[in-house]
Amino acid sequence: MKAVKIPEATITRLSMYSRLLEWLDRRGVITVSSSDIAEGVGVSPAQVRKDLAYFGEFGTRGVGYNVKDLLHYTMKILGLTHPWPMALAGAGNLGTALCTHHGFRDRGFSIVGVFDNDLTKIGKRIGDIMVHPLEDMPEAIHSLGIKIGIIAVPPRGAQEVADIMLKNNIAAILNFAPIALNIPDNVLVRNVDLSVKLEVLTFNLKYRGSVAGEPD
Amino acid sequence: MKAVKIPEATITRLSMYSRLLEWLDRRGVITVSSSDIAEGVGVSPAQVRKDLAYFGEFGTRGVGYNVKDLLHYTMKILGLTHPWPMALAGAGNLGTALCTHHGFRDRGFSIVGVFDNDLTKIGKRIGDIMVHPLEDMPEAIHSLGIKIGIIAVPPRGAQEVADIMLKNNIAAILNFAPIALNIPDNVLVRNVDLSVKLEVLTFNLKYRGSVAGEPD
Repeated sequence: MKAVKIPEATITRLSMYSRLLEWLDRRGVITVSSSDIAEGVGVSPAQVRKDLAYFGEFGTRGVGYNVKDLLHYTMKILGLTHPWPMALAGAGNLGTALCTHHGFRDRGFSIVGVFDNDLTKIGKRIGDIMVHPLEDMPEAIHSLGIKIGIIAVPPRGAQEVADIMLKNNIAAILNFAPIALNIPDNVLVRNVDLSVKLEVLTFNLKYRGSVAGEPD
Repeated sequence: MKAVKIPEATITRLSMYSRLLEWLDRRGVITVSSSDIAEGVGVSPAQVRKDLAYFGEFGTRGVGYNVKDLLHYTMKILGLTHPWPMALAGAGNLGTALCTHHGFRDRGFSIVGVFDNDLTKIGKRIGDIMVHPLEDMPEAIHSLGIKIGIIAVPPRGAQEVADIMLKNNIAAILNFAPIALNIPDNVLVRNVDLSVKLEVLTFNLKYRGSVAGEPD
């Protein structure tokens, strides 16, 4: 890996390429061109080549990329060649949706603990996981070696949950609550804001054609 | 509005600024600096100024921006000064979570029809909306003037749902199914991939410090 700074947008697209490669591999596709990848993900072929070039030389001119090899490389770059157990706070509709989300398990993510302080939810099962009280989260984080926490509680409870995660040395947080959390710089956090992409759509509906094509 | 191409990342950030401004406005804050906005959203103050400059001159040097005015401008730019009725396909956990999502209604988005072809879901209520069979979607799209469709069905059913939306002149689709849909160029589509941001986190956990800071 080069010592250059890699743009986050490149990592985002790499994740999309990797997902596409997995899909192609499952269907027995052997080789793929940068144009194929570009079309499948909705970017330009030059963008695909530029993104991959950050990580080394892949593929053969005129032949393309070996699907299995490139899939393996992308998984390795993304840190997905070993499993990532995750703790989920919030057993509401969104939390339940995340627990049963196919896309997670396929990529090595596995929610191993679900926590909520709603008494009507504690003790219920989501798939094969039982919902535990929030106060059980610290022990689970340590005993299960959890590094990633997901916050899917209502906005007013999100910082409290984040604080518990931070106190127990969670290294990265994926936050679905539509508020900005106070997180120290040494902990990674990414927010999934469900309405941002809707606003990108309404902007585009209003000013059709005035936005540079960039699907993600 | 200038005739320049505006990067999608700018629109994404504009949506985040707008949300923050709304939050500040509700708390009675009158003026805000680009540094305050930058800190609240997690970008640089220069980025905030550059993004806003696409749309005109805002704020007063040394004073900052009037929160109410800038909120109004950002809402107008994003096309949010009139309501956007939406159709949702998929009444599972994710669909239910989206229906009850605070962030949508606050921004002028309102799910006015929910459709599923699962007989155990049809006729149930999510909040104040009843789940209807998919075959009722075309009529609802036309009678309720729906321009935006949300797809929250499992991957195998997503293209069928998209095709129904396309046939009924939906102008924009927000897709939560982790597959690439076939959508003609004249229809806007954005994908919300719930695991992409997790992979950005695992990449960063693996190569801490080698990624340019860019929080969204």
